[in-house]
Amino acid sequence: MAGARDIPDEYIAFAARLADAARRETLPRFRRDGAVESKNGDFFDPVTDADREAERVLRAMIREAWPDHGVIGEEFGAEREDAEWRWVLDPVDGTRAFICGAASWATLIALERGGRPVLGVIDQPFTDERWIGANGRAVWRRGGAETVCRSSGVAALAEARLSTTDPLPAGYFTVREADAFATLAARARVARYSFDAYAYGLLALGALDLVVETSLKRHDYAALIPVIEGAGGVVTAWSGEALGSDARGSIVAAATPALHAAALDILRGA
Amino acid sequence: MAGARDIPDEYIAFAARLADAARRETLPRFRRDGAVESKNGDFFDPVTDADREAERVLRAMIREAWPDHGVIGEEFGAEREDAEWRWVLDPVDGTRAFICGAASWATLIALERGGRPVLGVIDQPFTDERWIGANGRAVWRRGGAETVCRSSGVAALAEARLSTTDPLPAGYFTVREADAFATLAARARVARYSFDAYAYGLLALGALDLVVETSLKRHDYAALIPVIEGAGGVVTAWSGEALGSDARGSIVAAATPALHAAALDILRGA
Repeated sequence: MAGARDIPDEYIAFAARLADAARRETLPRFRRDGAVESKNGDFFDPVTDADREAERVLRAMIREAWPDHGVIGEEFGAEREDAEWRWVLDPVDGTRAFICGAASWATLIALERGGRPVLGVIDQPFTDERWIGANGRAVWRRGGAETVCRSSGVAALAEARLSTTDPLPAGYFTVREADAFATLAARARVARYSFDAYAYGLLALGALDLVVETSLKRHDYAALIPVIEGAGGVVTAWSGEALGSDARGSIVAAATPALHAAALDILRGA
Repeated sequence: MAGARDIPDEYIAFAARLADAARRETLPRFRRDGAVESKNGDFFDPVTDADREAERVLRAMIREAWPDHGVIGEEFGAEREDAEWRWVLDPVDGTRAFICGAASWATLIALERGGRPVLGVIDQPFTDERWIGANGRAVWRRGGAETVCRSSGVAALAEARLSTTDPLPAGYFTVREADAFATLAARARVARYSFDAYAYGLLALGALDLVVETSLKRHDYAALIPVIEGAGGVVTAWSGEALGSDARGSIVAAATPALHAAALDILRGA
């Protein structure tokens, strides 16, 4: 994270205000009968009023406070994409969880400088949990208290608590990817599913050791990087290259470099 | 629920005190590095200090308050199993979720009369959510507020939000059961995983519509029945018979009779 230690405090405070504003749009709509539409005619790709209204509010706040900054959001595309400072927004990551009443959805907010994420927020309003990664460290806030995040020391796959959002090939994985995941799951200590971005928060807390997914877009992963790396974890694509370097949007996040290498041995080439 | 409308208030209040006491044992151990052992040499069947200490405390409270009542618990077996009133305890349902830091584990407390569950509590301490089913109704308590539970009106499988704890045959399902579940998931609107008993709470809130599992024991399902039925849902084994009537510990819980019948059409015989 060279060069990532000089994020102005005012940007960190502003990111927290964005997360607060998103909560006001998402939480009152959670577990309520709101409109759910599919963005895609071929498969069910849900979007709710919570997604749209939260992104509208966040974009307006950024435009007002930092008119020179760029914005990329899941629902409304890119503005000033080439700006030095660029906000990357996913108002409700895990819309499927959201419409099933499960508190694993999150609001994701990243700030990128020169195309690299230098500030990341993962916010879960129902459980009142917020992870903030910046300047080479990550913290977890809940109920007014703040804890420094530290990923676990687990180095061996046989000890690893593993997670992916959907292990079946009908979901995000191709058949080959699902097979590679199943191999990993068979060697890990335990595997759990359907956590969406919340899984990376659990990794930063040392509660999970390994998270493996595909089909992530920039707004899905940009905010995760400063949190995972700030907690001492390692995150790359399945090739071992930087996130976003492959067309599959693959990600492997691990508590330690040794565990990351063990996972890559199985995932690389899938 | 004929005959279930005369549960004494003092039993309902006592069940809530049991859940409070369990919280004091489980919550301080959640996301802490506690001892995790496997109860079984052949596969990983985790048990933690939280499971054991919570059950110890609950058994002592029952013995003190109602010395004639029976108790069945996950960790310490049966006492006075033939008593008219019998408590059925699962101090931490979802130990795998617990050791992964996920707030879908729950404390399950049932009171049975003449072998039938007439009072059920599902308690999630981290999110401060408690479901209580008794006397033909179910309520959800959080932050001092109480809401009457009502399952959704979803009748068509194509509209259903479906859940199971582990969809892979390596988990709770046999290969045939996993295939039947995959058929169901392909026809449902959306499927999410790894919720353990919390899924039945979401069903009672109208947030999920269908929950399908196998490998449940009496302490896993006794507390669910008064909550699901109290919210207007339907719950049986995959055969359509009463829970516990098959050796597989199968369960299908649905928001409506029509959805329940549609699920049975696919699951029966798997």
